[in-house]
Amino acid sequence: MKVLVNESILDKEAVKIDFEDRGYQFGDGVYEVINIYNGVPFTFNEHIERLYRSAQEIGMSIPYSPEKLKENLMSLLDANNVIQGGLYLQITRGTAPRTHHYDEAIESKLIAYPLPHKDVLAPQTNGVTAITEEDLRWLRCDIKSLNLLYNIMSKQKAAKAGAFETILIREEIVTEGTSSNIFIVKDGMVKTHPANNKILNGITRMKLLQIVDQHAWEYQLEPFTKSELLEADEVFLTSTTSEIMPIIKVDDVVFHDGIPGPMTQKLQSAFREAVEKDIQSYEKE
Amino acid sequence: MKVLVNESILDKEAVKIDFEDRGYQFGDGVYEVINIYNGVPFTFNEHIERLYRSAQEIGMSIPYSPEKLKENLMSLLDANNVIQGGLYLQITRGTAPRTHHYDEAIESKLIAYPLPHKDVLAPQTNGVTAITEEDLRWLRCDIKSLNLLYNIMSKQKAAKAGAFETILIREEIVTEGTSSNIFIVKDGMVKTHPANNKILNGITRMKLLQIVDQHAWEYQLEPFTKSELLEADEVFLTSTTSEIMPIIKVDDVVFHDGIPGPMTQKLQSAFREAVEKDIQSYEKE
Repeated sequence: MKVLVNESILDKEAVKIDFEDRGYQFGDGVYEVINIYNGVPFTFNEHIERLYRSAQEIGMSIPYSPEKLKENLMSLLDANNVIQGGLYLQITRGTAPRTHHYDEAIESKLIAYPLPHKDVLAPQTNGVTAITEEDLRWLRCDIKSLNLLYNIMSKQKAAKAGAFETILIREEIVTEGTSSNIFIVKDGMVKTHPANNKILNGITRMKLLQIVDQHAWEYQLEPFTKSELLEADEVFLTSTTSEIMPIIKVDDVVFHDGIPGPMTQKLQSAFREAVEKDIQSYEKE
Repeated sequence: MKVLVNESILDKEAVKIDFEDRGYQFGDGVYEVINIYNGVPFTFNEHIERLYRSAQEIGMSIPYSPEKLKENLMSLLDANNVIQGGLYLQITRGTAPRTHHYDEAIESKLIAYPLPHKDVLAPQTNGVTAITEEDLRWLRCDIKSLNLLYNIMSKQKAAKAGAFETILIREEIVTEGTSSNIFIVKDGMVKTHPANNKILNGITRMKLLQIVDQHAWEYQLEPFTKSELLEADEVFLTSTTSEIMPIIKVDDVVFHDGIPGPMTQKLQSAFREAVEKDIQSYEKE
C-alpha cells in the first residue's frame, strides 16, 4: 500500500509517526473519509472544504491549497489503483515537545491512504439494528476531529450488543450516531437534527437533504426526542460508507415490521441516482 | 534520550509509531505525568493506580501489573539519569485497521519518556494570571484520556493572552483549568470542585486535600460559581508540574493586591514539607 505523507507518496512501511506528534498525544488533528466510486471520489470538494473548515476551527493552517491537496490525493488513488473503497485522510498539528499550548509555526502532518471497500448492499437491503446511549461528547461535534474516544466507546457497545450503530441522546434529544447522522420519517415527514455544535454535518446528510428538497418531499431540520425516534414510522442513518442505511430496530422497538420502509427505499434510490450522475459528470470532465 | 516502549527501553530514534495506532486516529488511550524529585517519582502509586483506572474506564486492559510497570519506569529513569523533571507515560489501544469498534485482543502500546524539569519557583513565588472560558469538554473528564483537543484550544487562548492558565466554566460553575484543578479561599475556607465526571481528580489536588484535612483547616468540596471565583480572597491552582500555584489575577480581577495570599502560602509550605517527607521515606526503603 502507498501512503500520502504531506506531499510525498511513500510505501506503507516507510511511514514514520513521531511519538511527540501532537495527534498522538492530544488527538490534535482533523480528518475525513471519502467514498470512491469507480475511481472517482464522491463529493470530493465538500469533504476537502470541510477538512479546511475543521482545521481552521482548531486554529490549524494547512500549508497547501485545497486544489493541491486534491491533486495529491488523486495521485495517491492512482498509485494504489483504487476503483472502489474509501480514502482516509487526517492532518495533525505536527511534532513538538509536549506542552498543551503550541507554536503556530509547527509543521502539520498529513497522512492519507485507501481503506478497503465495504460491501453494504446486504445491510442496505435488509436494514440494521441500533442501540441508544447518552451523548456525553464535547460541544464542538461540528468539528471532525481526532478526539473520538466517546464515539468509539459507544460504537463498541453496539458491536458487543450485535448492533450496527449506537444512537446518541443528549438531554432527551437524538443528536446523531457515533459515525452517522440519524433521520426519522413520521407521517411522510423526514426529520433530522439541525446542523449545529451538537452534530457533525455529514456530507451524505447534506447531499440527501438536497435530494429531498429537489423532490419537494417534506422535511424538517428540528431536534426530536428519543420518544419520537421510538414512535417513528421509519428510521435510517446516513454516512459516507453506509450511504443511506435503514434501521429496522432501535433497542427493543421494531419499525415497519422489521423491513426498510417505503420512504427510506425511495431515498436510497434517489441517492443512488445522484451518485451515478455525479460520477458520470466527473468522468466527462 | 531513552524511551520505554511497552517493556523495552529504546533510543528515541528507534521508536516507531504506526499511523494506524488507534491513539493516532482516535485519541484512543490514557496517560499520566509524574513529577520526579531527587530521582524519586512523587505519588508514584497514585499515578499508576489512576492510569489503570483510566484504562479500565475506556475498556482497555494493560497487559502487565502495576508493579511491573513501576519497575520498568524506574529502569527508564535510571537509563536517562533523571534527578529532577517529569515522567510522561501514555498507553494506547494499539494498532489495527481503522474501525470505530475494536477487537479486545489488540496489543496496547505504552510509551514513556522523561520531560525536562520546569523551574516553577518564580511563578510560585510571584503568582500567575488566568483567563476564563466556557467548558465545552465531554462529560467524562474524570478519565485522563488523550482526547485533549478542547484543553489545548483553551490553553492556547491563555498563551495568546499572556496568561498561565484558562479556567473552565460549565453553566456558571468553575470546573477546573485546562491542565490543573482550581481552588479558591474565602473567609479562611478552602473550596474546590468535587471529584465527579466534570473534573479530573488531580493527584496534587488529593494530596493537598489530605494536608488541609491533617491541619484541620476548613475546606468544602462544593461546586462554586464564576462570581464566587471573582469574589474570592485567594485563588490558586494545583497540578503535578505546577504543584501549588497562586493565581493573582483572573480576567480583569486582581486578588490580594496581586501577591499570593497567606492561605496559599501556608499550603505551599505544607505541601513542600509533604513532598520532602515522602521522598525521604522513599529513599529509606
